[in-house]
Amino acid sequence: MKRTIYLKKKSLEEAKIILTSELVKLIHLGTETIPVVEAFGRVTAEPLYAKISSPPFHCAAMDGIAVKAERTYGATEESPKSLLINKEAFFVNTGNPIPHEMDAVIMIEDVHLINSERVEIREAAYPWQHVRAMGEDVIATEMVFLENHKITPYDVGALLASGHEKIQVKKRPRVLIIPTGSELLEPGRIDLNQIIPSGIIESNSYVLYGLIIKDGGEPIRHPIIEDNPEKIKEALLSHHEEVDLILLIAGSSAGSEDYTHSIIEESGKVFIHGISMMPGKPTLIGRFKDRPIIGLPGYPVSAILAYEELVSPLLYQSLHLMKPDRMKIRVFPTRKIPSKLGTEEFLRVKIGKYGEKFFATPLPRGSGMITSLTKADGIIRIPALSEGLNEDEASEVELLREVEEILNTVVMVGSHDLTLDILENLLGKFYPPIFFSSHPVGSLGGILAVKKGICHIAGLHLLDPETGEYNFPYIRNYLAGIAVRIIHLVYREQGLILQRENPKKIKGLNDLLRKDITFVNRQKGSGTRILLDHTLKTLLLEPSQIRGYDREEYTHMGVASVVAGGTADAGLGILSAARAMGLDFIPIAKERYDVVIPSIHFEDKKIQRVIETICSNEFKKMVSQMGGYDVSRTGEELIDCGMRNADCGINQG
Amino acid sequence: MKRTIYLKKKSLEEAKIILTSELVKLIHLGTETIPVVEAFGRVTAEPLYAKISSPPFHCAAMDGIAVKAERTYGATEESPKSLLINKEAFFVNTGNPIPHEMDAVIMIEDVHLINSERVEIREAAYPWQHVRAMGEDVIATEMVFLENHKITPYDVGALLASGHEKIQVKKRPRVLIIPTGSELLEPGRIDLNQIIPSGIIESNSYVLYGLIIKDGGEPIRHPIIEDNPEKIKEALLSHHEEVDLILLIAGSSAGSEDYTHSIIEESGKVFIHGISMMPGKPTLIGRFKDRPIIGLPGYPVSAILAYEELVSPLLYQSLHLMKPDRMKIRVFPTRKIPSKLGTEEFLRVKIGKYGEKFFATPLPRGSGMITSLTKADGIIRIPALSEGLNEDEASEVELLREVEEILNTVVMVGSHDLTLDILENLLGKFYPPIFFSSHPVGSLGGILAVKKGICHIAGLHLLDPETGEYNFPYIRNYLAGIAVRIIHLVYREQGLILQRENPKKIKGLNDLLRKDITFVNRQKGSGTRILLDHTLKTLLLEPSQIRGYDREEYTHMGVASVVAGGTADAGLGILSAARAMGLDFIPIAKERYDVVIPSIHFEDKKIQRVIETICSNEFKKMVSQMGGYDVSRTGEELIDCGMRNADCGINQG
Repeated sequence: MKRTIYLKKKSLEEAKIILTSELVKLIHLGTETIPVVEAFGRVTAEPLYAKISSPPFHCAAMDGIAVKAERTYGATEESPKSLLINKEAFFVNTGNPIPHEMDAVIMIEDVHLINSERVEIREAAYPWQHVRAMGEDVIATEMVFLENHKITPYDVGALLASGHEKIQVKKRPRVLIIPTGSELLEPGRIDLNQIIPSGIIESNSYVLYGLIIKDGGEPIRHPIIEDNPEKIKEALLSHHEEVDLILLIAGSSAGSEDYTHSIIEESGKVFIHGISMMPGKPTLIGRFKDRPIIGLPGYPVSAILAYEELVSPLLYQSLHLMKPDRMKIRVFPTRKIPSKLGTEEFLRVKIGKYGEKFFATPLPRGSGMITSLTKADGIIRIPALSEGLNEDEASEVELLREVEEILNTVVMVGSHDLTLDILENLLGKFYPPIFFSSHPVGSLGGILAVKKGICHIAGLHLLDPETGEYNFPYIRNYLAGIAVRIIHLVYREQGLILQRENPKKIKGLNDLLRKDITFVNRQKGSGTRILLDHTLKTLLLEPSQIRGYDREEYTHMGVASVVAGGTADAGLGILSAARAMGLDFIPIAKERYDVVIPSIHFEDKKIQRVIETICSNEFKKMVSQMGGYDVSRTGEELIDCGMRNADCGINQG
Repeated sequence: MKRTIYLKKKSLEEAKIILTSELVKLIHLGTETIPVVEAFGRVTAEPLYAKISSPPFHCAAMDGIAVKAERTYGATEESPKSLLINKEAFFVNTGNPIPHEMDAVIMIEDVHLINSERVEIREAAYPWQHVRAMGEDVIATEMVFLENHKITPYDVGALLASGHEKIQVKKRPRVLIIPTGSELLEPGRIDLNQIIPSGIIESNSYVLYGLIIKDGGEPIRHPIIEDNPEKIKEALLSHHEEVDLILLIAGSSAGSEDYTHSIIEESGKVFIHGISMMPGKPTLIGRFKDRPIIGLPGYPVSAILAYEELVSPLLYQSLHLMKPDRMKIRVFPTRKIPSKLGTEEFLRVKIGKYGEKFFATPLPRGSGMITSLTKADGIIRIPALSEGLNEDEASEVELLREVEEILNTVVMVGSHDLTLDILENLLGKFYPPIFFSSHPVGSLGGILAVKKGICHIAGLHLLDPETGEYNFPYIRNYLAGIAVRIIHLVYREQGLILQRENPKKIKGLNDLLRKDITFVNRQKGSGTRILLDHTLKTLLLEPSQIRGYDREEYTHMGVASVVAGGTADAGLGILSAARAMGLDFIPIAKERYDVVIPSIHFEDKKIQRVIETICSNEFKKMVSQMGGYDVSRTGEELIDCGMRNADCGINQG
């Protein structure tokens, strides 16, 4: 039914060659004359030569008297020399010109005033002492900056000092951004009270806007155009001459790529359509009339990565500048990461340092997940010819954050709980610059991360069905031989999260077997899943009879969101998640949520800060206010009496 | 005569503690509400929670039909299933909401249209296939960003997608910059035609202006105030309430520091006056009324370094942000660099990589030399407790440029010549991004740099007095055992550079012995110095009888500038330097200027680009136009017949 006019897909390398060979030459930036004081960040359009020397005259480098050195020869403590003021000695302040015929300055501290006409000196001066020679810094006529030089704030100083008031710079490349898509809404046009909004907010153009400014361009945003080839063509025809480069953000709807392609072919040329990169595959490179045009995919991560790999280098090349590299470090993946052969993948990762090595944990790989970029510490490029990353092989990661920030980040892995947001907030408030990063992978995932040494803290609430005991049995079994400390975080209420006002009249777990009820589950290895399975077993309920038992979400909020969205009637989760989404709740169990800290990290200052925050009254107060939590023993250190010869139970931490 | 009220000088460490303990708490930034689309670079004033989920509904991830997966079970190639359009199958485009009760999407390519009412499918769908679940990226109510988070362009996307149209951010810290000094002129107020201008152009405030913007502040520049305590006090009193921080750039003239100190003591408190850093010693930290004030020194490098060490961290702290670190690498100094014990020195360096190591060459250390910052690749901090750097000890350098740029830079050391500016210009034009950096240390310095392996190219014009031969004898003697290639650059005219219209009627070298003539010399080891000494010897003239023989400049332009400035009547240098400054010239000798390239670098692509540029017609043409050069053999490779069994003289390169 649908005809896709993809040209043979090209590698990113080939696409970059097309940029350099075909697109750069279409951009002809003019020049403009601007005041030097506004030139920071601009690019010189010609070599700049000094108009005056700096300093512009020989000047005093000290406060004192200017003299002719020859006249001072022979002066000593025993036989001082006296000099006539305003004839042989001239008072000068730092920065003052040295009077004609004088060639040295004697510091004021070494000058002895005899009377209103004479001073006395007790040491000879050597020629040019304490004198800043004319042109010491810049000599008139010398070249101060080359053509194609990007002006820093320092450079503004050198330009002013060398007599420039105005200079010729290149005009910024003007970039027209055209968002297209019938499903898109302008920001502010969405009704936040509607359960199902009428569309998706257009945000790509505003992300690109900031990136273009960062890269030295001048962005111009066109309002959203619906999926209508005629309207897109009209916009291109009426605006292409005003700009140096066009970015057309593809509508993600049917066929929109096709007609983008046709429109461009009709009035120009498509050089490439389809690049073997992920995200970013549907990118198009072409020429509309005599203007370069790049068609960006509609998914945010795709659009951004295609921008950064193709548009950003093009802007730098058009200004004859070198694009600055991101800092790179070597990281080990926390697990094996397969990747599609034949496609260059841009994997967004969180990074942590444990011991001597940096480790990278992949974030969600979907191209619609803007948070996979906002949360990322870096990006690993997995080459097209690789099938992925192995755990014991280091890879290079391009950093999106400062290394210092990564080193100041406490990484918590394991079970998800809403109190962690409060912890993060307070930690950042009490102890900047300590950052907190939590990865929801379930309680068992947290324990395994401690075992592998790839986290600072693990959060867990694991019920041992045999003993009814929380956490300790798992720590004993899985972490034998690894010294850990355990801090109690909260008791919390787990239960069934139900749609508002419980339209299906669910009363308890037994109802999950009803044919008209759809459930949403948590992933295997999560404490909540273990709690569910244990409770179902106690009640002799068969999981396979629950519709939706196989649908897995990774967080309490994920479950609550599915219920709120209406595609499930119930899920198991914490009260605070139900409250946050305004949903109903039936309590099932009260459970103990603890954090486990490997002893090797325990004394680390940033870990101590986390514990101090957990113990703070402010944390306890805010957690209590959320509902569903008991903070009566929050922050206490727990001793497992099954492990050591210690008092059982909870002890003061 | 002058009373200096310096408080006991503090270390930079102590000064930073005062910043954190006394100054930060004086800054209370308000908040303001701004549109998200303008929020790039701003800092959140509160935690931001998602107002809607993203995507805001379950939506199609592909173009196709939305179905209920259950209805498709059992469909195969052999037994297809047919579905009723708009009842069991709904056409959806990527991004469209999934109709109620549906839970999967089948790609349009796999859908077979039977008639206007029915489609057929030949494979079962599994639940949630090709569906982007509501909240997959962001779940309503979840925290999107913390308080004190600096917003990137990516973040703008996440904020819009989570339903934010406007957000609360911190106001930018407003910084008042007050330049003071009676010797200062506003840019544009200097008369470029005056031989001795009437003052020095005020540039510090504009450098700071750019730096403050870079650091997220809002600079406000006050016009220059002359050295008058009353006027400075008046400015502070009338403006301090409008800003969050005041920078008072000290007049460099006598006593100005004193009265800055008094004015602040009178209406506030001076915490520190004098910091053991170099440059930057006279820095003051205080409070004027209830506003933090920092007194910056008047010399540009001092003002900038004091800003970067003290003001910039204060701005970041006031915004609760971490200041990004500069990238650091390890470098070896090209020579021993002594430094003053007890003072932390900020040494500006040029960096080059030769073989496996990076090497750093110090730039001029004077605090008045803004070009020591604009030319620097990095800054080495020499700690207060160190007496300097040794050649075999690696130091850490903070980079001011990209490593990539440093690796793309050809470093030329040795004799100075004006044609090198042309070479640099053309190289940057023909072969971006190759950069060129030349260090004028004289011909002998160039040869020694080749010997030590700390340059890519050396430039020399060294006359051997014994044989009258140029360059070869020196290369043979000093570089025995080091394989080098030699490319001829130019023949050039050396002679006496004289004041315009030769007022003292100098006719030749003999006149230098006259009592009314002052000479300016080049440094020992420069080819020009060797030429002078050789020629004086031939003429039986005694150097000690030449007034100014001991005054040394490092470049031809330096000599010309001294003559133009009127403190010398004559110097030996090249015709092009005399022409550039509009001075008179008497030819003395025509000499051969060659470049020497260690063979290990010769095949390096960037070195080949330099040679190609030297051989270009454009280079030869531009050099000829300068006057004083003969380019008839420019670019030819020279073979030293004293070294090898080769044809003598110049051969085609």
